[in-house]
Amino acid sequence: MTASASPADTVDEFICRVVALDLDGACELVSDDLEYDNVPVGKNHGPEGLKTFLGMMVSGFAEVQFVVHRQTVTGNIVMNERTDRFRLGEQWLDLPVAGVFEVNADGKISLWRDYFDMATFTNEMTRLTTSA
Amino acid sequence: MTASASPADTVDEFICRVVALDLDGACELVSDDLEYDNVPVGKNHGPEGLKTFLGMMVSGFAEVQFVVHRQTVTGNIVMNERTDRFRLGEQWLDLPVAGVFEVNADGKISLWRDYFDMATFTNEMTRLTTSA
Repeated sequence: MTASASPADTVDEFICRVVALDLDGACELVSDDLEYDNVPVGKNHGPEGLKTFLGMMVSGFAEVQFVVHRQTVTGNIVMNERTDRFRLGEQWLDLPVAGVFEVNADGKISLWRDYFDMATFTNEMTRLTTSA
Repeated sequence: MTASASPADTVDEFICRVVALDLDGACELVSDDLEYDNVPVGKNHGPEGLKTFLGMMVSGFAEVQFVVHRQTVTGNIVMNERTDRFRLGEQWLDLPVAGVFEVNADGKISLWRDYFDMATFTNEMTRLTTSA
C-alpha cells in the first residue's frame, strides 16, 4: 500500500489479505489502537487482538471468501455489505454481514465493526458439522 | 421531498417519519417494489409490507429513536450504523443496527436492509418485559 491509497483501497487490500489468511499482512494495515468489534460477540483491540480472534475464527476452515455486494465511502469511513463464506470440506457456511471501517490519517484501519446475526453463524456451524 | 433531494436526504427524511411513527408518510418515500429485509427475520415487500411489519415492530412501544452514528453514501446507495431505540415505560431497548438503502431514479427507496443480532433484540425484550 502506498501513502496515496484511498480508504476504500486500504479496506479492499485488507480484505484480500484476510481471506488469503495472511493475518500478519492484514495486521500491517491496522493501527496499534485498532478497535475490532464483532457486534454480537464483543471487541478486540490492536493487531494482536485481531490476529488472535481472526485466527480462532478461521481455524479449521479450508478456505475463506468475503463477497462484497455493496460498498459505500464517505471521507475516511468505508461501509460494506458482504457474504462472508467459510469452507469446511466441500460445504460452505454463508454469513450475511455489514461492516464498518475507519481509516486514520496514517492510512491504517483503526476501526473494523461487523454486524451479523450470531444464531445464523451457529446454526450454519451446526449444519456443516453434523452433515460433514 | 423535492425531486432534487439527494439519496441521503431521502433516507434522513424517511427515518424521521419512521421514528415519528408516521408510517403512511414513510410509505410515500418508498417504491412500489420496495424490498424491506430484516436479515435475521426475512423480507417484506412494497409499502404495505413495510407498514405491516413496521407497525408490528413498533406496536406497544411508547417512543422510537434511530441514533445514526455513521452514514456513508456512494451513488444511490446509503449505508448507516445506528442504535435503534424502543421505549417501553421508562426503559429503553437498544439495538445495534447496520442499514443499507438504495434510492431509485424516481427518488424512492427501493431497498432497506437492516443487519442486527436477533438474540440481542429478544434478550432486550425479555429484560424489559420481566423488569417492567
